[in-house]
Amino acid sequence: MSTKGSMGSQIVTDPPKGTRDFPPEDMRMRTWLFNNFREVSRLFSFEEVDFPMVESEELYTRKAGEEIVGQLYNFEDKGGRKVALRPELTPSLARLVLQKGKAQVFPLKWFAIGQCWRYENMTRGRRREHYQWNMDIIGVPGVEAEAELLAAIVMFFERLGITSKDVGIKVSNRKVLQAVLEKYEIQADNFAPVCVIVDKLDKLPRDVIESELAKINVPSEAIDGILKALTLQSFDDLEALIGAESGAVGELKQLFALAEGYGIQDWLQFDASVVRGLAYYTGTVFEGFDKDRKLRAICGGGRYDRLLSTYGGLDTPACGFGFGDAVIVELLKEKKLLPKFPHVVDDVVMALEDSLKIKAAGVAAQLRKSGRVVELVIEKGKKMRW
Amino acid sequence: MSTKGSMGSQIVTDPPKGTRDFPPEDMRMRTWLFNNFREVSRLFSFEEVDFPMVESEELYTRKAGEEIVGQLYNFEDKGGRKVALRPELTPSLARLVLQKGKAQVFPLKWFAIGQCWRYENMTRGRRREHYQWNMDIIGVPGVEAEAELLAAIVMFFERLGITSKDVGIKVSNRKVLQAVLEKYEIQADNFAPVCVIVDKLDKLPRDVIESELAKINVPSEAIDGILKALTLQSFDDLEALIGAESGAVGELKQLFALAEGYGIQDWLQFDASVVRGLAYYTGTVFEGFDKDRKLRAICGGGRYDRLLSTYGGLDTPACGFGFGDAVIVELLKEKKLLPKFPHVVDDVVMALEDSLKIKAAGVAAQLRKSGRVVELVIEKGKKMRW
Repeated sequence: MSTKGSMGSQIVTDPPKGTRDFPPEDMRMRTWLFNNFREVSRLFSFEEVDFPMVESEELYTRKAGEEIVGQLYNFEDKGGRKVALRPELTPSLARLVLQKGKAQVFPLKWFAIGQCWRYENMTRGRRREHYQWNMDIIGVPGVEAEAELLAAIVMFFERLGITSKDVGIKVSNRKVLQAVLEKYEIQADNFAPVCVIVDKLDKLPRDVIESELAKINVPSEAIDGILKALTLQSFDDLEALIGAESGAVGELKQLFALAEGYGIQDWLQFDASVVRGLAYYTGTVFEGFDKDRKLRAICGGGRYDRLLSTYGGLDTPACGFGFGDAVIVELLKEKKLLPKFPHVVDDVVMALEDSLKIKAAGVAAQLRKSGRVVELVIEKGKKMRW
Repeated sequence: MSTKGSMGSQIVTDPPKGTRDFPPEDMRMRTWLFNNFREVSRLFSFEEVDFPMVESEELYTRKAGEEIVGQLYNFEDKGGRKVALRPELTPSLARLVLQKGKAQVFPLKWFAIGQCWRYENMTRGRRREHYQWNMDIIGVPGVEAEAELLAAIVMFFERLGITSKDVGIKVSNRKVLQAVLEKYEIQADNFAPVCVIVDKLDKLPRDVIESELAKINVPSEAIDGILKALTLQSFDDLEALIGAESGAVGELKQLFALAEGYGIQDWLQFDASVVRGLAYYTGTVFEGFDKDRKLRAICGGGRYDRLLSTYGGLDTPACGFGFGDAVIVELLKEKKLLPKFPHVVDDVVMALEDSLKIKAAGVAAQLRKSGRVVELVIEKGKKMRW
């Protein structure tokens, strides 16, 4: 299709480092994935929302040492405002809930599918953007809310042909760690930083974790107690450690009972090693993982009852999850569950000679009006090859 | 739903200046609008694509004085790269076409629905982001391509209940101006800047336009000729000015003949005042407008046969349009054509006592599996009000 020579030196044709183009075949896959996110959310009667891609930096600058804040894609805009490309959707959701205030009828059941950003200086070939599906319930204090979220995640897996042999969801509750910290009389201020540190246990050597905990003044006997508590995988052991009366035990048992009601119990397992790396979780935490243990976490979420109050609102019970668009696709490829996504056309209309072009346009217009997908051949010199 | 007092001073709960949140009711409208964009594109057998929100600044820094470049939302990333939030989608599309190179079979018929950004220092209450629907055809030199685009735009209007009494599409061709410039022996380099300047004729006083043209060394008799040419609204007058043999006349007549084939002739009118403010258009240009003349342009587009070569590729015939999400909604409100967008639920499931909660979850799960939208009541103390 090229007719003349080029005029300038060639620009860089790759998308900026860490970002993606979506040519048609990739876009069809993305649309298929998002439609599944959307359809599951709809069946659960969640309402879709969205937020700005650019947010004020202050929405994200929590002090707990989270990876997500260390990798903030922030910059100063031309008006000197400190802003960031959103690294996650939950803070925006909390901001919007605060803004709407008393005009809202709780509970809110909201979902969003949005692009999120991070910036690392390292060159690990990691992407700087991904899309994330979030479902959140605002205004329900009981684990009935978490159960709905877990049921939605399982329905999504099942729609894609994934079974509980392929994927599991580890469930724990941050109140387990809270009980352990209280036992050692560790300050409440240290709760979020401890969670963020011990979340890295599967990525960093144990002695690094220990020294990071020591750095925030966690005594060494408490460090041992914390790390031991994270190895628990049965309710009996959990009760032995923190007592059957503990809130964590009660919530976990109730959540697993509800899971039986939903018929999703095969997907769930109690595993105290799940903490999640976001500072704001306060109760239930969970994480989807592939049972071959080849991939990173598929999704994750939990309860964040104090996020709205850290933004200056009143304490508002809330929970939600984030489900990225990257690991799930790796898993589907691995399991050979990724469908083909052809471009589908109903009719091809072509004028066999130039004098029929105007008529061909009319035929295409009529077919399209009746709902058919029509490829009208408009290029010159196209041979009949069909 | 608030239980305890607040912990911190309240953050700013509004979205950043010039950006929007999409709470459920707004999101339902956006989804409805985008679904119409998507469905029309699909019926025309266009394939959806997308590009990064962040692009390299060099993709946009053309020298013609366009408004879009003057308002670039650009910044330096942490790696010192000059990047920008995309102000439009066409340059990304051109970049991707260049990148794919000879692997592609032309023509490409692509559409995209994406957020675009601008940054102004002025405080006019204008938004900094909007969504734009683009359809582009790459690889077709003839106006059959423009005719397809115009037919798609008309189909979109018709789906929404808009008629040719509400909206028209002004059509012209930049080769008209080119012929006038050649008559006055004005350098080809000045073609794009002249177009960008005269595009502002409906926003700025005539003497400002004249002095801007004089500043780029357009002689005063040429200025008169150019401004006179822009007043033409009939093919007879056009032929009288630039001759019946002119390429502009031939293309315009052929395009209007094709429009009759599509049955969209009532929507189109030749109007030489349409130039469009983007530097890269080379041929056909068009603009949708409301016939009450209350609103800004609804959509606009044209042929840009030299954009790929300015990026260092080979000359590649191409045309496309952009259709924003703002003016169309104003028009629909004006014409009372905007539907209601209620949240639709098929079933509400509620445990009348706590002991039935697990059973209720099971009922909800079964109904959802059968495709029903189920609101499961999970909040405490909900009274039967239905």
